[in-house]
Amino acid sequence: MASRYPSSLWIRLPLFMLFLEVAFILIFSFLFSYDYDLENLPKGHNIYAEFQDVNVMVILGFAFLLAFLKRFGFSATGFSLLLAALSVQWTMIVNEFLFHFSDGNVKISLQRITEAVMSTAAVMISTGAVLGKVNLMQLIWMAWVEATLFAVNRWVAVSVLQIGSYTSLMHVHLFGAYFGVMVSWALCRPLPDSRAENEKSTPVSDTFAMLGTLFLWMFWPSFNAVLIASTEKKLTALFNTYLGMAASAVAAFSISVATNRNGKLTMAHIRNATLAGGVALGFSASTLRYPWIAMIVGLGAGATSVLGFVFLKKCLERAVRLHDTCGVQYTFGLPSLLGGIVHIVWIAIDSRENLSVGGYSALIEGGALCLSMALGLTGGLLTGFSLRLKLWKEPHATNYFDDQAYWGFPHLAVGY
Amino acid sequence: MASRYPSSLWIRLPLFMLFLEVAFILIFSFLFSYDYDLENLPKGHNIYAEFQDVNVMVILGFAFLLAFLKRFGFSATGFSLLLAALSVQWTMIVNEFLFHFSDGNVKISLQRITEAVMSTAAVMISTGAVLGKVNLMQLIWMAWVEATLFAVNRWVAVSVLQIGSYTSLMHVHLFGAYFGVMVSWALCRPLPDSRAENEKSTPVSDTFAMLGTLFLWMFWPSFNAVLIASTEKKLTALFNTYLGMAASAVAAFSISVATNRNGKLTMAHIRNATLAGGVALGFSASTLRYPWIAMIVGLGAGATSVLGFVFLKKCLERAVRLHDTCGVQYTFGLPSLLGGIVHIVWIAIDSRENLSVGGYSALIEGGALCLSMALGLTGGLLTGFSLRLKLWKEPHATNYFDDQAYWGFPHLAVGY
Amino acid sequence: MASRYPSSLWIRLPLFMLFLEVAFILIFSFLFSYDYDLENLPKGHNIYAEFQDVNVMVILGFAFLLAFLKRFGFSATGFSLLLAALSVQWTMIVNEFLFHFSDGNVKISLQRITEAVMSTAAVMISTGAVLGKVNLMQLIWMAWVEATLFAVNRWVAVSVLQIGSYTSLMHVHLFGAYFGVMVSWALCRPLPDSRAENEKSTPVSDTFAMLGTLFLWMFWPSFNAVLIASTEKKLTALFNTYLGMAASAVAAFSISVATNRNGKLTMAHIRNATLAGGVALGFSASTLRYPWIAMIVGLGAGATSVLGFVFLKKCLERAVRLHDTCGVQYTFGLPSLLGGIVHIVWIAIDSRENLSVGGYSALIEGGALCLSMALGLTGGLLTGFSLRLKLWKEPHATNYFDDQAYWGFPHLAVGY
Repeated sequence: MASRYPSSLWIRLPLFMLFLEVAFILIFSFLFSYDYDLENLPKGHNIYAEFQDVNVMVILGFAFLLAFLKRFGFSATGFSLLLAALSVQWTMIVNEFLFHFSDGNVKISLQRITEAVMSTAAVMISTGAVLGKVNLMQLIWMAWVEATLFAVNRWVAVSVLQIGSYTSLMHVHLFGAYFGVMVSWALCRPLPDSRAENEKSTPVSDTFAMLGTLFLWMFWPSFNAVLIASTEKKLTALFNTYLGMAASAVAAFSISVATNRNGKLTMAHIRNATLAGGVALGFSASTLRYPWIAMIVGLGAGATSVLGFVFLKKCLERAVRLHDTCGVQYTFGLPSLLGGIVHIVWIAIDSRENLSVGGYSALIEGGALCLSMALGLTGGLLTGFSLRLKLWKEPHATNYFDDQAYWGFPHLAVGY
Repeated sequence: MASRYPSSLWIRLPLFMLFLEVAFILIFSFLFSYDYDLENLPKGHNIYAEFQDVNVMVILGFAFLLAFLKRFGFSATGFSLLLAALSVQWTMIVNEFLFHFSDGNVKISLQRITEAVMSTAAVMISTGAVLGKVNLMQLIWMAWVEATLFAVNRWVAVSVLQIGSYTSLMHVHLFGAYFGVMVSWALCRPLPDSRAENEKSTPVSDTFAMLGTLFLWMFWPSFNAVLIASTEKKLTALFNTYLGMAASAVAAFSISVATNRNGKLTMAHIRNATLAGGVALGFSASTLRYPWIAMIVGLGAGATSVLGFVFLKKCLERAVRLHDTCGVQYTFGLPSLLGGIVHIVWIAIDSRENLSVGGYSALIEGGALCLSMALGLTGGLLTGFSLRLKLWKEPHATNYFDDQAYWGFPHLAVGY
Repeated sequence: MASRYPSSLWIRLPLFMLFLEVAFILIFSFLFSYDYDLENLPKGHNIYAEFQDVNVMVILGFAFLLAFLKRFGFSATGFSLLLAALSVQWTMIVNEFLFHFSDGNVKISLQRITEAVMSTAAVMISTGAVLGKVNLMQLIWMAWVEATLFAVNRWVAVSVLQIGSYTSLMHVHLFGAYFGVMVSWALCRPLPDSRAENEKSTPVSDTFAMLGTLFLWMFWPSFNAVLIASTEKKLTALFNTYLGMAASAVAAFSISVATNRNGKLTMAHIRNATLAGGVALGFSASTLRYPWIAMIVGLGAGATSVLGFVFLKKCLERAVRLHDTCGVQYTFGLPSLLGGIVHIVWIAIDSRENLSVGGYSALIEGGALCLSMALGLTGGLLTGFSLRLKLWKEPHATNYFDDQAYWGFPHLAVGY
């Protein structure tokens, strides 16, 4: 096997990782110390259970959601853990610099760790788009650039456009999806037919992925509500997301059967589209005052997601050579876009007694959406091109979707 | 494959699902709006972590508990998610109509969503009894009827018999098990020998099922305590359930070895009977004032469950053609019956200083138990007969326990 | 099959288990009743979510961490559940006798159950060292002795050496690892070559183990903080552990690649060494006042763990016939030792203004560390020798690492 899977990253990769970690430790040593603001303590402490829900989503949910490939389960779960560990640390640093350095309020709190963990979802989503086609070193570089850019994106949205810090975090799905899609496009190689076999799933790998889906599905209400301070708004976000997820699951099953000529379900749709409701409700979960609107948004998002998988995926693969391993555009991209539009329309409708204020808010939110989209697309494109440098020792297309390129097996693995 | 697995549900099934979801949205739009009763907020908010434990049990625990069949993992996990999503919404609607419509207190709260999620356990349990023998459309119809009937059952118990709302929820195991068993019996077909191969498990599918078991085992204390308002009673329920589960696990291992002539363990016993303690303690977890009683109940429930699997299962299959895929009668039915009897006896003993009150309470609780049993049995029987209508395009027995009847596979699946 | 896997434990094992459970119930009936100290209630109640995190770690995390062997998944998950159920009950009893019997404050509280669950981690860790080489009866005996000894160890540390109750619990990793390693050594048999095939993992069993790892990784902050009363110290412990785990994951990936001549990752390192940071921070998570120190400790622990796996494991297997199935010495033993030394050094440094107090504290902590090490080693050695008694019907080496020796399979299992 040694000849087919070259040991090219031997020294380079560990040095790169250790360099990053040592740099993080140095920056932490200059930047952070524990200095508890006693008034903030009780609140920070109370959100710990919800923080853990979000942590489970980002560390375990996404890792297993990506574990659907036949021979790429080690990389999906292992690389996700590493990328999350690096991204959370780096995001904490960048966030402190951008948001709190000027006011001297540099500290570690549960809220700020939660923000960093939620931001890391962008990296996980992008990883889904390029899964199996890049090596670990390229992933780390992508994660580093993306975490930085998403923090900058949030900073512009919050400081310049004056949108809420919580809403700015909810751009994570849109940003992550389009960033990942563009990286994948910029990296595009004619994929050989030989990789086709490895790009499939097996019943076992699909069941592992379903486990990831279920954790994401169950804890999505926590994701959309964890950082909301007002109890009333928080409960609204929890209920809306819960009901939207339920409607989204029904839509995913319905449309998946309806679009299959044999009237059968497709696991890839169920695994992904059931989550679209939570994605779409990210922006507006706390503001929609009627549960039925949340349910309609969930239903629409689930349907959009499946339709994207069925009609758009193959189309884009052929037309513009856009290969998106997990279909993150349909799970996260389109539903988030839909949710953003609903959010803007709702703001405009909701403030009908004060048209100018509502119109201005809607405009600002629309601007933030365009900003995330633009920064995601261009950032992803540039990152994708940067990943084609010889430096990264890009894997050969014959090694795509294959754990054996990155993991030593005691004996030849035969897939699941 | 197209000839063997007919596409008969192509239009019918998605229209049915979408019709239900649209109906739910319409009813929600007339019935519910968020109108927070500020005094109730803190309490509702505090139970969120425990609500998520219960949510994990119902969404993930049951789904994976049912995933033990060799070739039915997609259906077990996927259908469970869909049924839960539909049942929770419908149960919320029915509960509001039955319990709160008269007093105009129609609202969404964490407590009411928790009640709906707990009620949904009945649907999950019944699904276990008919698993693999009915199609998704039949399951949805069954879930709809069962969720309605269980809500009616609770309403009668609470309004007419005046038993506690919390106790009435604990009938969910008994009701679900006997409803499912009767549906399965009413549907009975001579099962062909060819299905025998598919009704087995593999080490991998059993390990997935064990994952479901562990989540149910760990979070059962939350299930038995989440809705109890008094802190003292809540802690009693948590401790009693925890200790009862431990005793139940020991009983399951002991009796499983003792009843095997080779002195070996049977995975089906361990997967199921370890949970019997939690089921049996549902009724009395908060009232038993001595931990050792809870432990004896757990020990007895675990032993009953394994003995049921060993001696009753084959017997009933042959004698009355009662086929119970998961053995829900032994995991949920008998232990719940045992727990109900303990509950009644304990009430009678505990109020020995006031015999007439105790006797009356015991009588009422016994009546509620009989009501659940009767409604479960007759409801299940009628539902089972209604599922034999041509309308549902019942699967042919050769397709039993086979994902390929409902799921499209990119290539021929070969099981785990 | 009957000839190869003898039914020798048929009557003996169930009687042994039932005897223990009945004895526990009797002791509970004399010892415990629920008598709520009302002032302690709110606090006890608030830690429930964190208690469940720890419960998930001990019941599910360790069970799946041990499920990495090709043909030993049932035993790994099933036996763990049984051992945990027995150990928690027994530890509660011993703890009450040792710590609370004299002051008459014998009661059940969430805090004491949490202590018992955390103590049970020692049994889980030791099980990892002997996994596949002993039968269930031997495991139960080992668990019983170990739970007793660890409680005695804590009692000596708390009562005689006057170290904190919380710190004494953190010796669980060190004690468990060296106890298990010595049991394994005392039991040593020349392992036949035939067992080599069964001692391997498959991609599926490794993915199940990765699931266990992720749960341990995510919830480790709860483990290191759940019983700390001061909010400030609790948050410090949470943050330090979170950051230490992240650094530990980066170290595990880096050193795993660096020590592989093909530049590839080894799943066994990732599964285990990513957890070393949490282990090492057990002692000092709440006292380290700078996050970068926690990160350095995590980095060092992760590196130590991988280096132990790479250089020490084979060496010890050959030189002293020390066979450690899971490598618990490298995951828990060495990192815990490292953490203990850091803890002592930090105490000495931190109290530099008052050298005598600091020196004394450091001396005491060092004494406690030596005590755990000594008691773990000698206890393990004696327990290991006691396990060689004919009484236990030790499995023949040809049955090592094979579920079929303990579990009935409906048909011949072919592994994953």
